[in-house]
Amino acid sequence: MTFSRDTISSKHIDALATTPQAASSFLSPATQQSVELPDTSARVSYRQISSYIEARIERGDWQAHERLPSVRQLSRDSGMHRLTVFKAYQHLKTQGTIYARSKSGYYVAPPAVHTLTNENELEPALFEGTMNELHRLPARYQFSQALIDPNLLPNHYFTEYTKKVFDLYPKLLGTYAHVQGDLELRELLARYFSQHSRFYLEPEELLITSGAQQAIFLIAEAWIRPGDYVLVESPTYATALDVFRQKGARFLEVSTDADGYNMEQIEQLMRQYRPRLFYVNPTFHNPTGLCIPAEQRKQLVDLAAQHQCLLIEDDTCSDMYFGAAPPPPLFAYDTEGYTVYIRSFSKYISPGLRIACIAARQPWMQMLISCKSLTDGGTPLLNQKVFLHYFMSDRLHRHLDTLRIALRIRMETMQTELQQSNWHYIEPQGGLNLWVELPPELSVSRLLSHALTEGISFVPGSLFDYGKRPSQHIRLSFSFANETLIQQGMRELIRIADEL
Amino acid sequence: MTFSRDTISSKHIDALATTPQAASSFLSPATQQSVELPDTSARVSYRQISSYIEARIERGDWQAHERLPSVRQLSRDSGMHRLTVFKAYQHLKTQGTIYARSKSGYYVAPPAVHTLTNENELEPALFEGTMNELHRLPARYQFSQALIDPNLLPNHYFTEYTKKVFDLYPKLLGTYAHVQGDLELRELLARYFSQHSRFYLEPEELLITSGAQQAIFLIAEAWIRPGDYVLVESPTYATALDVFRQKGARFLEVSTDADGYNMEQIEQLMRQYRPRLFYVNPTFHNPTGLCIPAEQRKQLVDLAAQHQCLLIEDDTCSDMYFGAAPPPPLFAYDTEGYTVYIRSFSKYISPGLRIACIAARQPWMQMLISCKSLTDGGTPLLNQKVFLHYFMSDRLHRHLDTLRIALRIRMETMQTELQQSNWHYIEPQGGLNLWVELPPELSVSRLLSHALTEGISFVPGSLFDYGKRPSQHIRLSFSFANETLIQQGMRELIRIADEL
Repeated sequence: MTFSRDTISSKHIDALATTPQAASSFLSPATQQSVELPDTSARVSYRQISSYIEARIERGDWQAHERLPSVRQLSRDSGMHRLTVFKAYQHLKTQGTIYARSKSGYYVAPPAVHTLTNENELEPALFEGTMNELHRLPARYQFSQALIDPNLLPNHYFTEYTKKVFDLYPKLLGTYAHVQGDLELRELLARYFSQHSRFYLEPEELLITSGAQQAIFLIAEAWIRPGDYVLVESPTYATALDVFRQKGARFLEVSTDADGYNMEQIEQLMRQYRPRLFYVNPTFHNPTGLCIPAEQRKQLVDLAAQHQCLLIEDDTCSDMYFGAAPPPPLFAYDTEGYTVYIRSFSKYISPGLRIACIAARQPWMQMLISCKSLTDGGTPLLNQKVFLHYFMSDRLHRHLDTLRIALRIRMETMQTELQQSNWHYIEPQGGLNLWVELPPELSVSRLLSHALTEGISFVPGSLFDYGKRPSQHIRLSFSFANETLIQQGMRELIRIADEL
Repeated sequence: MTFSRDTISSKHIDALATTPQAASSFLSPATQQSVELPDTSARVSYRQISSYIEARIERGDWQAHERLPSVRQLSRDSGMHRLTVFKAYQHLKTQGTIYARSKSGYYVAPPAVHTLTNENELEPALFEGTMNELHRLPARYQFSQALIDPNLLPNHYFTEYTKKVFDLYPKLLGTYAHVQGDLELRELLARYFSQHSRFYLEPEELLITSGAQQAIFLIAEAWIRPGDYVLVESPTYATALDVFRQKGARFLEVSTDADGYNMEQIEQLMRQYRPRLFYVNPTFHNPTGLCIPAEQRKQLVDLAAQHQCLLIEDDTCSDMYFGAAPPPPLFAYDTEGYTVYIRSFSKYISPGLRIACIAARQPWMQMLISCKSLTDGGTPLLNQKVFLHYFMSDRLHRHLDTLRIALRIRMETMQTELQQSNWHYIEPQGGLNLWVELPPELSVSRLLSHALTEGISFVPGSLFDYGKRPSQHIRLSFSFANETLIQQGMRELIRIADEL
């Protein structure tokens, strides 16, 4: 029995069910032997249907991107309950064998990128996924995730603090948190900002969030309506773009270079389009590592107030500097209350806790609290108390000093290797990444696909662009891999580029 | 110097600033003595302006709901920086002395409900706030929050488990969680549901959320677009109504009584309006305590599939039964995949952890994961691992048995007291509340305001109605106060009602 390579029609399935040959092949396509229909236990039978479908795909009856029979058809033809067939498809979808299209049905999935590596004569398939999909690919030389190596985090000490916290608050796990966040933590952070970031606020002007990601989401939820203009830096943080896009934002881009912003361009865009907000990352910018000078910070907050455009200041790396500490955040220069400040501590203290905060004046704060209240009712108290006790310890400051040195060494290791290439970058003053420009003749997407097959990951610059336009830039994170891996991985990456 | 009682005009302020008398009174209205303008330290001066405004309000110059001078005016007139004036207003707003209206300015706040209690000849002001505002009022007899008394939770044992978890996963705090939730936890929950709730799913069909509140939010975010029809039970959980309302839902209500749903009404509404979803709470319904019989559960999942209406099944109390265990959830009857199941464990295990989950078939699950990814990137790993190790312990099952008995005793204590009244209720088979109908001549809002002044809180039935229509019902939670407090508080409440 043969099957055509194009879309499976209901005729095929009918034939499959009504001829004895087809009926027997239904559950054992490889051997063509008759097998009994499975018993009524759904847990067994859906696996049998799955195996049948897998075998058909393996044999080439159903090819990549070909549509599979509908649940209803396969149920009728096999005599199985529809739920059983449905579960089989779910199972295959989960393991990546097939995929679903909304309202259209199930299709055979193409083989994944990394399974192509055996056939070393072939050009690997180009990577076309999102940032998250890229991060999920296995990589021995991990230069794509701007995360701090867990080995550089104070895990042991942190664990000790956590245990103490339970002795301090024996009913911690039985208590709901205030929606705005634990008052003790907000008071501590207000004091911290006045001492370290040169701005003053009341605990009521702080909202504790579950990571910077939630902070960005709450801001988009509060203020972006479909069709609103949003100013973004070019390039900028890919995930923020995803959040704003989902809320229906129209993007306007602001170019940045080593001198900072083009202020005239910003003024003109604000005047012409009256954007709802400007998402900025002025301190050790992701991905470029740039730091906006103090003078431009003052100008920007004035412009924003004048044009009533909220500045959303994302600050996740200001403690990760290699030379002098950066200027104070925009929020510290703002006398008009148009800056909303996101400060994350997750990356370099405790990714497992997910603690960040938003500082904002009224009426903005009240709007954010309403959104937080609907979104999750408040960040868990456990996480806030654990964070609080570590954050106020001397140990944290020693950790930060050590971490800065460790990151600097890793950055320099990467830079040393880059000297063997003709690739360019601007020396960052802080942060976790190098933003590297490749020579025009080198294809970034080919380099990435070849690198992935060798277990090296990096992020192509196009993912930091709101329109995903091609770019000769790549982001190389030096914070996750240790020096040995950075050395080996970078040598290998440059070798691959030379061969291309 | 006198001020008119109506809106303060700019003329007042100009006068205030230009006459020597006004200028001197600016910062010391009570004594009329001249004081020097504060120095440049913003932290000092905003407090001085605050005190000035407070003194004016106390003196009666500015009355409740009167508009205050704008920030710009007060800044010009006082010679203070606008930010300083702004901060003074923020400070007063935070402490409840004044309130703000969007784009209109600041107004004098009326005295709070509980400050009226001194004047015992006066009728207390009617409570007109939201559920959250009600919960924030101090109450000695706490019958408004459907929370479990922290003294009934296994705090000590839980703390011990938490400490062990850190020994098991020493790098727990340095690790990000998977956006869908920890795989070990999802595998455990999948096994748990197959054993306890009679439904089978893959770990890929589960999403871990930060409490049931976030689960409801993600569902609304994924599926409700402005103008969509949403079916809700009448009455239903107030906070879910708030979330759906914020997404622009139009509500259609389904009446419930001791026999369950009116199935014909549901069918007619589904046929006529094609609602996007039906939010249901079939097991020990909040607030009524009703439990939908198995037969109606089957009918409902069939209807939903037929009309392609998602059933959002909120299940937070199914372990809190007093007699027989309830029937399996709707999800267990659903062979078509139209039920999305929310299961929360926060209430009776660990409010401080905020762990819940959503079970859903594809393609729904994939849509929820996308929303979760944008919303917060994943529930913190710490909370998931702590929960997991407690959840799989024998200790949990002993805790549940004890808790059921403790809750039953509290419920019976409340019922005994209710025998002294002519109030009606349907005996609940589980849950945390009594849904009590007051006699038609008794005003629920007057009862509430008088009760609040005596430190007794309950939730008026109108808050469980999508249109906040008046209702003769009230919700009395018996899970937070202990037996002595229930006895005293209920006697007092019935006495107040009798006097009215």
